[in-house]
Amino acid sequence: MTRFQPNLRIPGPTALPPSVREAGAKQMINHRGPEFAALLERIVTGMRPYFGTAANDIVILTCAGSGGLEAAAVNTLSPGDRVLAVTIGSFGDRFAKVAEVYGANVERLSIEWGEAVTPDALRAALVDLRARDGGDPKAVFLTHNETSTGVQNPIPKLAAVVRDVAPSTLIEVDSISALGAVPFAMDEWGVDIVVTGSQKAWMAAPGLAMVAISPRGWEATVAATTPRFYLDFERHRKDAANGQTPWTPAVGVMFQVDEGLRLMATEGQDGVFARHVACAAGTRAGLRALGFELLADDAIASRTVTAARIPDGLDWKAFNGDLKRDGLVLAGGQGHLTGKIFRVGHLGSVTIEEILGAIGTLEAASLRHGRDVSPGSAIAAAQRAALAALGVDAASPARA
Amino acid sequence: MTRFQPNLRIPGPTALPPSVREAGAKQMINHRGPEFAALLERIVTGMRPYFGTAANDIVILTCAGSGGLEAAAVNTLSPGDRVLAVTIGSFGDRFAKVAEVYGANVERLSIEWGEAVTPDALRAALVDLRARDGGDPKAVFLTHNETSTGVQNPIPKLAAVVRDVAPSTLIEVDSISALGAVPFAMDEWGVDIVVTGSQKAWMAAPGLAMVAISPRGWEATVAATTPRFYLDFERHRKDAANGQTPWTPAVGVMFQVDEGLRLMATEGQDGVFARHVACAAGTRAGLRALGFELLADDAIASRTVTAARIPDGLDWKAFNGDLKRDGLVLAGGQGHLTGKIFRVGHLGSVTIEEILGAIGTLEAASLRHGRDVSPGSAIAAAQRAALAALGVDAASPARA
Repeated sequence: MTRFQPNLRIPGPTALPPSVREAGAKQMINHRGPEFAALLERIVTGMRPYFGTAANDIVILTCAGSGGLEAAAVNTLSPGDRVLAVTIGSFGDRFAKVAEVYGANVERLSIEWGEAVTPDALRAALVDLRARDGGDPKAVFLTHNETSTGVQNPIPKLAAVVRDVAPSTLIEVDSISALGAVPFAMDEWGVDIVVTGSQKAWMAAPGLAMVAISPRGWEATVAATTPRFYLDFERHRKDAANGQTPWTPAVGVMFQVDEGLRLMATEGQDGVFARHVACAAGTRAGLRALGFELLADDAIASRTVTAARIPDGLDWKAFNGDLKRDGLVLAGGQGHLTGKIFRVGHLGSVTIEEILGAIGTLEAASLRHGRDVSPGSAIAAAQRAALAALGVDAASPARA
Repeated sequence: MTRFQPNLRIPGPTALPPSVREAGAKQMINHRGPEFAALLERIVTGMRPYFGTAANDIVILTCAGSGGLEAAAVNTLSPGDRVLAVTIGSFGDRFAKVAEVYGANVERLSIEWGEAVTPDALRAALVDLRARDGGDPKAVFLTHNETSTGVQNPIPKLAAVVRDVAPSTLIEVDSISALGAVPFAMDEWGVDIVVTGSQKAWMAAPGLAMVAISPRGWEATVAATTPRFYLDFERHRKDAANGQTPWTPAVGVMFQVDEGLRLMATEGQDGVFARHVACAAGTRAGLRALGFELLADDAIASRTVTAARIPDGLDWKAFNGDLKRDGLVLAGGQGHLTGKIFRVGHLGSVTIEEILGAIGTLEAASLRHGRDVSPGSAIAAAQRAALAALGVDAASPARA
């Protein structure tokens, strides 16, 4: 069936709302002038409550999220520094790898893909590391939301373990595909470095990584000897004090992030978070009703991306071809899950209508491919789950 | 006087043509799909004649131009490698600095700001270096167009000197603010690394650096031990073979570069170059007619940005305030030229009408500030110079 606007259900870049698209069409400005300084200030101020920090610096880097991870590593570590990299998937592996490339002595706590790391496992790893090293690691790397598997790690609990066992160890969190969509409390949890990216929850195009840095994080940057230039935090902090960035920034993406933040402010932080909970619940219920096995258990399920196993016997290439023809764009698996799972993104500008639409298209393709599905049932299941997540059900007051 | 669209005459970000602005408003696509692969291919193909290379790889990095310079350094050098960094201004200094940060043994050939480096000076420096080192440097860094001073180095002659004196030395050229606006012949000149940025001649927003790499450049990347990850050329080459980039790229900026290249193809390469020559000539003649002393001599003048000295006794802050109120946005000086010069950008989408307009606004402000200028004379001078550069004069056939 012809579709005039694809339903872009990959976990980023996410679809841009109309006004964000328009912001991307704005004329350039002088990046050394007052208009730019005001833009930079608005973005930092607008993001602050999502990072959950009252006063930490937030630097804006012109790069992909992976550049933000590299920045976290090179600004806080020296070659030889011990790092405990907790990895639960492809992006956790990437964070570990980047530290290794720059000479860190990385110990991996690798969890099976599709699982989260438990506080107990992290505690055991830290205790073991201390027994072997005679001290605590310089940093623990954590992934908030593992985009490759659709698993959300329990960051507050994990951070509490680090603070308890290794009080001076830095906690560095890849929240690229979660921040803005899922609550975060950097100050309260004692997290030192948090990385996010413009093309995820912020509803803008890719091109910017935003990184928040705690006072302990800044102390680490002073001691860190890993060479850095383009991604140097201190240069960004220094120039931000004058309303600038050290290098010419992706101004057009900043216009879009600014507009995305305006939309998010209009919706309200609780509204943004609730919408993501409802869309995740609808996606999961819909996929299950279609007979797909989900990779992650509900207790550790991501609120921004859901991974489902490709059933034995399903010709995925033909099936996905049908989805594409109907305008539904999904993501495949990564690493050793390539060809074994598919992923549905539900973050940023996502709406329940889009999730219902995606489930509908999956339902239609399932019927065409002879899968055991009754028309309408999966959409209904998705709708019930989404509404239940929002507290709307048959007994809700609005219906009385 | 109210102005509804500023005349953005800084040397980047440059003003976006209407269709490029619209391209910035496009909806996101899957950066792992066929539509993206086609986009990547079109950009590389479209840029190839501007780099002047038949077959060299061109990698697209999501970063500022300065990130492109860092990429050039870290991908080709090992700590301790000798580099001859020829610097004629602020951006030459930056290129030298980035190599130093990553451990290169940098020898600077520093030329007075406002001057170009001569082939003889470069030859002498290479001969001297060989006498001292007992060998040639791993690389020579050159700035094609020094944005901070409005000086264009004679790259073909400089490259010929390096190829003659030190045949195996890499030639790495920062052409961020020239490429696309000024002829370049990477293959013919034997240049190994050329860096450019989306927000300059390409008429797009900032966010992308494009780097072309010769076979000798690729050989150097294999030997280079400087750690790199986000800016690693090889990862980009590998993924480009599959129509992808290793990290999520600035897709919106790519849409804009693609449209900018389409406009440039419509105009034709010779037309693009001629327009820049005419706009530079008009700018220089107009500024001179206004009594401003230009920093660079005509023989070494940049075709994309012109720097002029702020005359003694002119209250620049008030004068520039008048310009801004009239919608003319100029750039100031950098480094030790801060407060001593102003700069007029004339690259990318620039037209002669915009240059005439800028000179007109400068003329009006000059009159208001009691400078010795007669109304209309500077604009007329600019027009005559621009038309002469285009071969249009009183005796031209079109007028007969």
